[in-house]
Amino acid sequence: MSLIAVGTMAFDAIETPFGKTDKIVGGSATYVAYAASYFVKPVQQVSIVGYDFPNEEMDEMKRRGIQLEGVEIVPGKKSFFWSGKYHLDMNSRDTLVTDLNVLQDFNPQIPAAYQGAGFLMLGNLDPVIQKQVIEQLKPRPKLIVMDTMNFWMDIKMAELQDVLKLVDVLLVNDSEARQLSGEFSIVKAAKKIMTMGPKYLIIKKGEHGALLFYKNEVFFAPALPLEEVFDPTGAGDTFAGGFVGYLAKTNDISFKNMKTAIIVGSAMASYCVEKFGPDRLKEITKDDIDRRIQEFVNLVSFDIELG
Amino acid sequence: MSLIAVGTMAFDAIETPFGKTDKIVGGSATYVAYAASYFVKPVQQVSIVGYDFPNEEMDEMKRRGIQLEGVEIVPGKKSFFWSGKYHLDMNSRDTLVTDLNVLQDFNPQIPAAYQGAGFLMLGNLDPVIQKQVIEQLKPRPKLIVMDTMNFWMDIKMAELQDVLKLVDVLLVNDSEARQLSGEFSIVKAAKKIMTMGPKYLIIKKGEHGALLFYKNEVFFAPALPLEEVFDPTGAGDTFAGGFVGYLAKTNDISFKNMKTAIIVGSAMASYCVEKFGPDRLKEITKDDIDRRIQEFVNLVSFDIELG
Repeated sequence: MSLIAVGTMAFDAIETPFGKTDKIVGGSATYVAYAASYFVKPVQQVSIVGYDFPNEEMDEMKRRGIQLEGVEIVPGKKSFFWSGKYHLDMNSRDTLVTDLNVLQDFNPQIPAAYQGAGFLMLGNLDPVIQKQVIEQLKPRPKLIVMDTMNFWMDIKMAELQDVLKLVDVLLVNDSEARQLSGEFSIVKAAKKIMTMGPKYLIIKKGEHGALLFYKNEVFFAPALPLEEVFDPTGAGDTFAGGFVGYLAKTNDISFKNMKTAIIVGSAMASYCVEKFGPDRLKEITKDDIDRRIQEFVNLVSFDIELG
Repeated sequence: MSLIAVGTMAFDAIETPFGKTDKIVGGSATYVAYAASYFVKPVQQVSIVGYDFPNEEMDEMKRRGIQLEGVEIVPGKKSFFWSGKYHLDMNSRDTLVTDLNVLQDFNPQIPAAYQGAGFLMLGNLDPVIQKQVIEQLKPRPKLIVMDTMNFWMDIKMAELQDVLKLVDVLLVNDSEARQLSGEFSIVKAAKKIMTMGPKYLIIKKGEHGALLFYKNEVFFAPALPLEEVFDPTGAGDTFAGGFVGYLAKTNDISFKNMKTAIIVGSAMASYCVEKFGPDRLKEITKDDIDRRIQEFVNLVSFDIELG
């Protein structure tokens, strides 16, 4: 089934302990789409860019089955730009520059041709915009997955809680789960968040893996221990793209299949961090992905006979 | 095969966000022995206590197949005492009091009856003492597992490196692995430490689980997401006791069996943290342990068909 991906298509300038880039292509919907396109076609993009977003990038997306009818191009303005610097542990970063540019005018209109999509991935955006998107979709997609961040908890908690009521799966990191719930224990936080709307909750813990909560069940997906994380930018969006892309491909939203989808998302994210920007995501093959997934299988496999 | 456990038998006074204890029984060898005694008999204890260590605790140990011939009782002195306070995240703590007492005189003599033990667990102690123990054992045990901590890296690095050459499995946490190796990447740290002596390396990450490294292989054991960690004191020693106890029970030191042993250790540790001190470890049954292990199986199980 087709997948709608809503989010930013933008530029990033990134500094890590390993190096530094000038402006390169980034944005949540960019990473989601590249990752998901390995599993599902079409990926129906909803975003906004300025005059400066490269045509070559859009052509590359189209070649991969990513539809851009829902991407508004604003002639007189620049694309969204973010610049940041990662600390040595790669789990924390400082934002150096945030130029909203076209993002100030983002008022997404869902193309008629996108209606009927089975899956919706809402990248991290103003919750008011996330809600606008959901309300435009008739019929409602089979599964709505939403990302957000602490920034919206700080300044638009009510609006965030409003859109939470409308989604099926929420993606947050551990500190965001604590902030959203007011609970320190991750298990208590998860239980509380699942009363706020989402039936499924994924708590991302970076190099420590991810937890999937559903009712009284929990699944733990490890992160692959990597020798070097070169650039973590986009890893969370890539994880989301692999996750929802796999669900859309299999058209199966059972808890059992979501566990598999998290492993797929983790495998995609483990490639993403190997190079700056989405470059590595464009190089890999289906075989690479299968090989990486097999590494995850090996990583957690053990035998035990009880009793 | 029998197991020798070397370490402290002591008193702790603990403060956590959930409560506070007066002096209660603790010590690394206490936790190791209680955990291991579910899997192997005898556990042959090597430790030192003062006049104040409770006879009832020693009787309880003996009932569980823990031999105390190697525990020196010093009539005129008090047992080792540690007091600490945990922060809200339970991953960090402040030491309030360390009274070495009898530990200043610890000069372990291995009883003749202990010779021939197949397994040796060296709890966190001065590396000079750890080495003394190894040198007394003829024949060398089949497997030597060693715990240590950053304290010895700070003040006795050369002696620590000396004893590392003699052991098979090293247990450290992630920050200790970084300190010992001088590498920030956990994978690089592991590779370097495995050139220092230990063939196997277990890196404990607290609530984020544990990694087992061996040659070019790696295994990831999650920690069970718990609603509340009541008191983490002794969790690492309990993990070690379950791990080495299971290896001794099965008498199988293959990488495959070590993976299983880590899950067993994790299950034991998940019980330990439910109450202050080793109390919870004394209450549980074999069925409880099997049930907890099954939760670990469920926690990481997923199905995937590649290709």
